[in-house]
Amino acid sequence: MSRKIYVLDTTLRDGEQVPGAKLNLQEKMEVAKQLIRLNVDMMEVGFPSSSKGDFEAVKAISKMASGDTVITALGRAVRSDIDAIYESLKEAHAPMIHIVLGSSGVHMEKKFKKTPEQILEMGAEAVKYAKKLMPQVQYSLEDASRSELEYMWQTIEAVVKAGATIINIPDTVGFAVPEKFGSLIYQLNNRLKNLNPNVLLSVHCHNDTGLATANTLAAIRNGADKVECTINGIGERAGNTSLEEVVMGIKLHPEYYGGYTTIKTQEIYTTSRMVSAVMGLDVQVNKAITGENAFAHSSGIHQDGLLKSKDVYEIIEPQDIGAPPMELVLTARSGRHAFEHILEKVGYQINEESKQKVYTDFLAMADQKKEVYDYDIENLMKQYPPEILDKKESTQLWELVDFEVVYNNISPTATVKVRRGENISCEEKIGNGPIDALYTAIISAIVTPITLLEYRIHNISRGKESLGKASIQILHEEKLYQGKAIEKDIIRASAIALINAINKTIQNK
Amino acid sequence: MSRKIYVLDTTLRDGEQVPGAKLNLQEKMEVAKQLIRLNVDMMEVGFPSSSKGDFEAVKAISKMASGDTVITALGRAVRSDIDAIYESLKEAHAPMIHIVLGSSGVHMEKKFKKTPEQILEMGAEAVKYAKKLMPQVQYSLEDASRSELEYMWQTIEAVVKAGATIINIPDTVGFAVPEKFGSLIYQLNNRLKNLNPNVLLSVHCHNDTGLATANTLAAIRNGADKVECTINGIGERAGNTSLEEVVMGIKLHPEYYGGYTTIKTQEIYTTSRMVSAVMGLDVQVNKAITGENAFAHSSGIHQDGLLKSKDVYEIIEPQDIGAPPMELVLTARSGRHAFEHILEKVGYQINEESKQKVYTDFLAMADQKKEVYDYDIENLMKQYPPEILDKKESTQLWELVDFEVVYNNISPTATVKVRRGENISCEEKIGNGPIDALYTAIISAIVTPITLLEYRIHNISRGKESLGKASIQILHEEKLYQGKAIEKDIIRASAIALINAINKTIQNK
Repeated sequence: MSRKIYVLDTTLRDGEQVPGAKLNLQEKMEVAKQLIRLNVDMMEVGFPSSSKGDFEAVKAISKMASGDTVITALGRAVRSDIDAIYESLKEAHAPMIHIVLGSSGVHMEKKFKKTPEQILEMGAEAVKYAKKLMPQVQYSLEDASRSELEYMWQTIEAVVKAGATIINIPDTVGFAVPEKFGSLIYQLNNRLKNLNPNVLLSVHCHNDTGLATANTLAAIRNGADKVECTINGIGERAGNTSLEEVVMGIKLHPEYYGGYTTIKTQEIYTTSRMVSAVMGLDVQVNKAITGENAFAHSSGIHQDGLLKSKDVYEIIEPQDIGAPPMELVLTARSGRHAFEHILEKVGYQINEESKQKVYTDFLAMADQKKEVYDYDIENLMKQYPPEILDKKESTQLWELVDFEVVYNNISPTATVKVRRGENISCEEKIGNGPIDALYTAIISAIVTPITLLEYRIHNISRGKESLGKASIQILHEEKLYQGKAIEKDIIRASAIALINAINKTIQNK
Repeated sequence: MSRKIYVLDTTLRDGEQVPGAKLNLQEKMEVAKQLIRLNVDMMEVGFPSSSKGDFEAVKAISKMASGDTVITALGRAVRSDIDAIYESLKEAHAPMIHIVLGSSGVHMEKKFKKTPEQILEMGAEAVKYAKKLMPQVQYSLEDASRSELEYMWQTIEAVVKAGATIINIPDTVGFAVPEKFGSLIYQLNNRLKNLNPNVLLSVHCHNDTGLATANTLAAIRNGADKVECTINGIGERAGNTSLEEVVMGIKLHPEYYGGYTTIKTQEIYTTSRMVSAVMGLDVQVNKAITGENAFAHSSGIHQDGLLKSKDVYEIIEPQDIGAPPMELVLTARSGRHAFEHILEKVGYQINEESKQKVYTDFLAMADQKKEVYDYDIENLMKQYPPEILDKKESTQLWELVDFEVVYNNISPTATVKVRRGENISCEEKIGNGPIDALYTAIISAIVTPITLLEYRIHNISRGKESLGKASIQILHEEKLYQGKAIEKDIIRASAIALINAINKTIQNK
């Protein structure tokens, strides 16, 4: 029996609670529109009573979302919070009030200083009040995984009688383990469906011990109708359940979980990158599904296996989530097979006698640079006499001849000299910061219409040395191109990553 | 019944396969020494037949590791690989040969182009050969989670008869789900312990769908004796099981898992930061256990709850893993309670009448800067007349007056002017890169003996603007200090983060 699993995204509420990730109104709207493209069933977009900014954002998103997407906002079990939710949501096409109240001993005693009976009554009263304002009301039993089962059930009975349409079971502190959490959900769901089969059971997990995805999937297998997630798993502390992991987990094992979601998985990659960029939260390179290396293979054995047959090492394909095709990253661990594959892609075909020498030189370079990109391959090939190449047309590419950046309080300035074959071009530009000046100068020297979509840098320290790594994405004639570079500092790496990306627009013409 | 769970760390083999994470010999030795301090039972340190560098590294670590830590290295089921393992490991105090060979249909047919019988024989032959060289031999059935149970069992019988001392079950492509993987381990372990109770059953999971930790813990609950992990969960594609998640998961639920590890959990944080720095692999801020925000709380509700009682929102304390105490990060979501807590910590006590105005000004600033650090609080407080302060001695701190960085091919140069009260100091220095020049100039202007331990930068794009964030760690008189800053570009952010860290050495005197 395959049933629909509802997906609520709370990137704009729980996700936005990450230190430093607060978005302005325009950014929130952008993310909300992308979540609609991703086709989430519901989205929680703020905590309206917490600040004027939150209230306005919930209001603006409610106005914008015209389709079936349920828009919800969170508040405590007090009238002023519920009023704020109502006021901010009332223009939404499908609004839902979300009330949260602790149900564990530690929360009731230490946070609220109230008895369990008082808390239960407070919750039921709040739902009754909310229900008068809007038909859809979700009730969350905060810290459920550390709460007493019978007390939780009494609370659920009371709030369902008061009109709650969804009961949400949060593992607030990330304490649950899959088997036990699954069994809790099984028991609650059985009783709940007897009480009122129309009320949905939902789960909301946190990742403090790395089990959020597993707990959420265990809940689905045990009857949960709805899951709460965030993009890239962001959220308080170690974050929430990753939407992309749960959605792809269900898709990979549809019979086992007996369900499906209606998420447009091809929008996952775009959504992940957008959230990462506007919130300034880098996604770990080995993050499941959305990490930069999620589909990258670098060992000789794996690269060789993959070039033979994809399904040897790949169970999800990048295009399933809308990601660019997998790149074979060349490193000192890449075998000859992979090296020659890339060499040919860049445009070189070496004669038999020279292959061993070129491969040995490549390994020495890879030991120095960690990752080897097209630009490095071009530099490597420049050392050899043209005789080693079997006939193959070589495209002339841009190279960086020299540059200077001056950074001070007046205005950062960059001067660059670039060359493509005989064509040498120089430019000097000012910018908002050193990289802005540098990029403006390079783009104007090369004279090519591109839009910079993404710019990321980080540094690698190797003992006393330090290396800078830059990754960028540009748009040129409606196509995406990536450029990466590792150099001895972040400014040089930034310059070369941009030139690498621009060169790709020439190679792929 | 509590039994010991053995932990094998493969950061230096599977972890090092991450594109760009290749380490040099000195770095490998440093990580290996730290893994010994962490007290892992076994560590896999390379693939000796893959390159001369790998061979030498395995050899050097084997010589260095004098204690009980088992040192192992990987190879295919062929004599030349096994010989290379033997040669590189032979000086180790407790060496173990590790042989891997595919057991799934897709691996046997498409990668090896051999029949199941041929593969089985090849594996048993390899173990027999290895066993003559060393008493400890581990055999891995690559892609086990997609292999046929009865065929796996035949293979296990054959290799145990040939002398294998550990059988390792890898979920090579990250396809397993906890309940099924647990049940597979239960069946195999029952048969294995009947065949030979001294052979250990091990698991090795990958995180392609975010379930590596859950699968590993399910295996432990179902009888696995040993787990293979990496620090921060790094490894091919979406990485391996995170050592820190599994170890803390067992520690949090010792009765449920019926076991314990002998990992020194207080070394987890140091190990995580070292691996991240030398490999250049940033840990996602919301990574479970080792992420920068794993213990950070920023919402008003959470900060307020925590200031009332820690166990409301914390199940693991930072000091359990050797991390610095939790920081309350101030953001636009911080309530008045948290703001005043930090204000007092920095050294200010405001009179009653001014509290509302200062809090409102703080909120406006937090909206701009996303995260508010001590330096920003100092800047905020400077705007007010001294009358608003209730008597409290204020420590004079360093501030950045002006600076210039010139970056070119000759030599990056930085000029800085800093001030502490009446004391103004200027310096000009050259460096290997722009940040190196800048830091050398600041440190020499301030004249304080510090060592820079960690320097991380990244950028946050907000629509058309971009913000730079820098986080550093310095050592001063044998104590660690952190400094962070968010500014409009990475160079300014780097400068202010360093001054923030240096100011902390003054405040905490």
